[in-house]
This record gives sequence, C-alpha cells and structure tokens, in this order.
Amino acid sequence: MLVNGTPYRTVWLDGSTVRMIDQRLLPFRFELLACATAADTAEAIRTMAVRGAGAIGAAAGYALAQAVLAAPEPEWREAVQTAARMIQATRPTARDLFFSVEQVLEAVQGAAGRDGARKAAVARAQELADENARAGEQIGVAGEPLIPSGGRVLTHCNAGWLAFTDWGSALAPVYKAHRAGKRVSVYATETRPRGQGARLTAWELGQEGVPHQVVADTACGWLFQRRRVDCVIVGADRIAANGDTANKIGTYTLAVLAAQHRVPFYVAAPRSTFDLQTPSGEGIVIEERDEEEVLLVTGAADDGSLRRVRVAAPGAAALNPAFDVTPGALIRAFITEAGLVQPHPDAIAGLMRGGASRAVR
Amino acid sequence: MLVNGTPYRTVWLDGSTVRMIDQRLLPFRFELLACATAADTAEAIRTMAVRGAGAIGAAAGYALAQAVLAAPEPEWREAVQTAARMIQATRPTARDLFFSVEQVLEAVQGAAGRDGARKAAVARAQELADENARAGEQIGVAGEPLIPSGGRVLTHCNAGWLAFTDWGSALAPVYKAHRAGKRVSVYATETRPRGQGARLTAWELGQEGVPHQVVADTACGWLFQRRRVDCVIVGADRIAANGDTANKIGTYTLAVLAAQHRVPFYVAAPRSTFDLQTPSGEGIVIEERDEEEVLLVTGAADDGSLRRVRVAAPGAAALNPAFDVTPGALIRAFITEAGLVQPHPDAIAGLMRGGASRAVR
Repeated sequence: MLVNGTPYRTVWLDGSTVRMIDQRLLPFRFELLACATAADTAEAIRTMAVRGAGAIGAAAGYALAQAVLAAPEPEWREAVQTAARMIQATRPTARDLFFSVEQVLEAVQGAAGRDGARKAAVARAQELADENARAGEQIGVAGEPLIPSGGRVLTHCNAGWLAFTDWGSALAPVYKAHRAGKRVSVYATETRPRGQGARLTAWELGQEGVPHQVVADTACGWLFQRRRVDCVIVGADRIAANGDTANKIGTYTLAVLAAQHRVPFYVAAPRSTFDLQTPSGEGIVIEERDEEEVLLVTGAADDGSLRRVRVAAPGAAALNPAFDVTPGALIRAFITEAGLVQPHPDAIAGLMRGGASRAVR
Repeated sequence: MLVNGTPYRTVWLDGSTVRMIDQRLLPFRFELLACATAADTAEAIRTMAVRGAGAIGAAAGYALAQAVLAAPEPEWREAVQTAARMIQATRPTARDLFFSVEQVLEAVQGAAGRDGARKAAVARAQELADENARAGEQIGVAGEPLIPSGGRVLTHCNAGWLAFTDWGSALAPVYKAHRAGKRVSVYATETRPRGQGARLTAWELGQEGVPHQVVADTACGWLFQRRRVDCVIVGADRIAANGDTANKIGTYTLAVLAAQHRVPFYVAAPRSTFDLQTPSGEGIVIEERDEEEVLLVTGAADDGSLRRVRVAAPGAAALNPAFDVTPGALIRAFITEAGLVQPHPDAIAGLMRGGASRAVR
C-alpha cells in the first residue's frame, strides 16, 4: 500500500537486512527500521515496532532466514535452532509467529548442504510474507462486491495492511473498491483505549487517499440512527468453530447496533484466524489488560514530542478487557481468501478443508 | 456532597460574593472561584467554570442578585435590566439560565422599594438554588429503591451533583443508596470525546467513597455480556413529550445494549428537563461540535500541568455529534422529583400537570 505515494509493505527482506515500518512512531512519524541480525529483528517484534498477527509472522520468518544466512560454521544447525527459540520467545501468544518459524526450519531441514539451506530459508520466508499479502488481496477481491457504490463502511480498530504484510483484512475490500474507482468512504472508530482506529486506520486510509472520518466510539449509535452506515467490516483475533468471533473490545456493541438497524456486519479474516479447536466463544479467554491504558493517553504535543497524560480522575480505578466475543448469529458472513463463508460450523469446517461456501446473501 | 470530607455545593452565595467549584480544573485540581460582581459570575458561566444545566441556572440567579445588590442609584432598575441581558448572553442554549433570570427579575418587580428589591432578589436566587438541590435529592429518594443490594449501576457522562447545585440526577439514587448503607458500585463510562465520565463522575464518586471503575466506552457490551450490570441510570438534556430523550452521545448505544440484555434502563431528570413543546425526538436538533474534541485530548502531565495532545493521525477529519436521541420505548422509566414516570405521553403530561405515575414495574 502507499505511503507518501510510494508502495510499501510493513516488513521486507533487503539482502540480509530486515526492513520494516516502525509502527511505534505511527501516525506521528514515518520511519523505517533496519534490522541487521536475527536478534535485531526479534527485538523489533518484542518491542512492537512490527505488530499485527500477519506482519509478526512475516517478520519472524525473515528473522530465522537471517539466522540461517549468518550462522557460523561448523555448528550452524545448532545456531539456527538457538535463533528459532529466541524468536519464539518474543511474543508468546502470536500463533502466526510459531507457524512461520516452523515453516522456515522445515525448509532448512529439507535442503541440501549449507548453501542450499541459505537459499531455502530465504525462499520460504519470502513465500510466507507473500502468502500473507496474497491472502489479504484475495480477501479484498472477495469483499469488494459487498460494498455498494457510494458505500459508507464502518470499521473498528486496525485490521488494515499495517497488521499484515500488505492489504490487510477488513480494509482490503475498501482498498480494492477504491482502486477500482468505486466511490467508498470509511468511518474509523477511535477504538479506545489504545486508539488504533484514530491512529493507524486513519493514517492508512489517508495515505491511500480513501475518504474517511474518525468518530468517537460513542458516536456509532448515532451513525446507525442516521442511516449513515451501509455495512460494517471488522477483523478478528480468533474465530471459533461455530463462528463466534473474538475481536477488539467494542466489536460486539457494533454487531448489536448493526443487527438493530439491519445493516450487514462482516468479519474479514484469513483461514489462519479460524480455530477449529475452540468449539464456541465460551472457550475464548479474554485478556484483561493494565488499567493505565484507560486512565492515561499518549499523543503528540505541539512540538511533535510524544507525551502521556492522565485523562481520568486521579486515584480512579479502571477495568480494561482487551477483546469481546461477537456471536456468530450477528455476523452476516466471513470474508476470507477463499471467498465468503457463513457463520455456521459446517461452512467453517468446509473452509478449513479447502473449500468455501459462497451461498451467502 | 463531599469534597475531601467537607460538604460542598457547586455554587453558592456568600454575602455579595458568588463562590463556586472551578470545574475547568477538575479532576486534577480542586479550587474555588470567587466572583465579586455579576460580571465576574457571568464570565464564569461563559467560560464553563460552572457547567451543567442546574448549576448554571443557580449561578445565573445569584449573578442577577449580585447585580441588584450593587446597582447604582438612582437608575438601579435599568442597571438590573442591563445585567440580566449580560447574564442571558453567556450561554444562549441553557434553558435553566433564562428561567432563573426571569424568576429573579419577577421577584424584584414585585418588591417594595430598593431594600425590598435587594432582599427579594437574594431570597429568590437562593430559593432557585435550593429547589435545584431538593429536586436532585428527591430524584435520589425516588430512584434508590430501583438499585438492588449489591447493585452495579452503569452510568454515562456526568449527571452528578457537579451538574446541579447538589445531589445530581443519575447519581442521586446512587448517593442515597450509598448513604443508607446499601452496597452499590458504579461503572463510569469514559464518555469520549470530552471524557466527563472518567473525569467528573469518577471524581465525584471517589470523593463520596462510592466504589467505582472507569471503563472505555467500547467495554460496555462486554459488561452486559458478562452480566455485570444490574441497571443503567443516565441523565438527560431534553425529554420530548413522547418520552424520546436527548442525552450525551453514546446514550442510545447503552439503551440498545440494555434492551438486548434485558437490563433496566432509567433516565433521571427533574421536571425542568421535560419539554412538552417538542412532540418527539425527531424535533430535537443535535449539535455537531468541533472535530478537535475527537482528534485532541487534554490531560494532566506528570508535573500536574494540563496538556493537549493529538490522538489521531495528523490530517484526519472527524465527525463529532454531541448528543443522540434514545427512543422512549427503550426507557424503563423516568426518575423524577415527583417519582417514577412511564415513557408515555399521558404519563409525561401528568407529571407536568403536577402528578406522577408510580405504575412502573
């Protein structure tokens, strides 16, 4: 996607250097980070210079490829194993990260000799990053027809290309529609407490030239009442076998409002987000995070410096659940790289076996 | 209500000086403001040192009493009229303000002589402030039985004593319950964009010792899903003849969630908030405010200074409706100084004629 008119991915391999957009500084500063070694890239994952499951997965694959390129003779295989463990220790809950490390290790083990291992590692890491971008683009193709001409899309949090290597999930249909010349605009919810909508989604859309407005999370009911929302598209953190979907806190409220106003509510996600091991939303553990995320806000001062200020009464306590679960019954369809999928166990099982149901209204 | 253990009203008359809590500094600093003249008090209203319809009304009455006390002979009646116009020009939309000015003027006109006018003006201004406090306390008495023992009340924005001279509307039943020794706790929504819940409601509740937690507006759906809300009580800015209620943006969303989860949703307001001239919510104009309220946030830095920081992508636009309208059908009952009132035209007309229906489940 575009940044200042130039196409970028969130993370890429340049020779033996991993380069990435430093997301810690967005939207206030756009800077690239160069990671010369596997340790540097692992540190970038740990400190969230790169964030979002897809982008983390790609960075992890590249990091292990760096380790394979640089591993000293003659014990290079041991050095690669050590690097794999270091990378896996950066973010213990990001499933894409483990998947990428396993895939690159497998490629190395199947390769012939030291040089073959180098080539295989780089090739597999690149494939993983490309697959992630391709899944995003295919989600865009599948979802684009759901947006009417002149359509006003409400989205929540950031499920855009910054969370993938390219394209994103919820925003991919928007980008496809915009690039095809269809008139489309977006309402980006602020997404308190961390504000990813106002910060990252608004920044992405601005760079691509997609018309958009930020709204406080409290304003969404008013938008529906005024018939200003044609569809809702959000991403997902985990989708259970029955279609119940965990996503950023506030998603459930938007699904209830959409149902009340008969506005279609879509969840866009690649196959890797579906979890057949979890039968329903009741099995999804919701992380409660530090109350300081609610009580304090970081933003840019007039001089451009980042400052943290208290926005609640001193001494007040806060409750800070990070996700909520939207029942599958409130979801019109999942938008996946294999097409539209109904929020029913059979359809989801079919998707994971390789097919996809398009029998969605 | 209590501040640092001492009872306060938001605004009061001390000799010929109007004293008030400077709400511009809350919750970060508690300071009193002394207004020696009617012009000083008018300026305090204009700059929102005092805010909330009831508190503004009381301040306006006191300001006019100050003008009557100080008006120079022999043209003192003209000076009072000039002061009345100055006070009415401070906040053109606050209806309580006009009502108070009219009431004090009427008292002055009916008084005998210069000294009689002074006494009548001070007495009527004091009555108006006392009536506002009493209405709040009566709302508390009427609403307290609706809160079960151990009840967890969700409220939005600030409809507490800071918006009245004392007690408040939505929080009055909470204070009555707490003072009666009933176990009660409150979830205070942050209430973006201006954050009155996290700032003022949390501060009020903390000073009174009522257990409470701040939640991001996005977390409310999760609270209902987890069955952590026993009732919702909010205030109102205007209530139409059919029960449709304009209140702070985000109120409608809470009413929809409460209906979805079969949790009672109450609106607490004195008679003065009901507007029989407006047949339904369609006639209520919703103010759209400056987008900077969404894009920038003011809070306290570590050194205690107040700082404004940008929390959205630079260049992003925002949409900022200040209120929304909740249909009467989603409201279980109004809690008024005359008891509970059903959200139906006949019951509301009866309230305004002086009665109140208690036939509410």
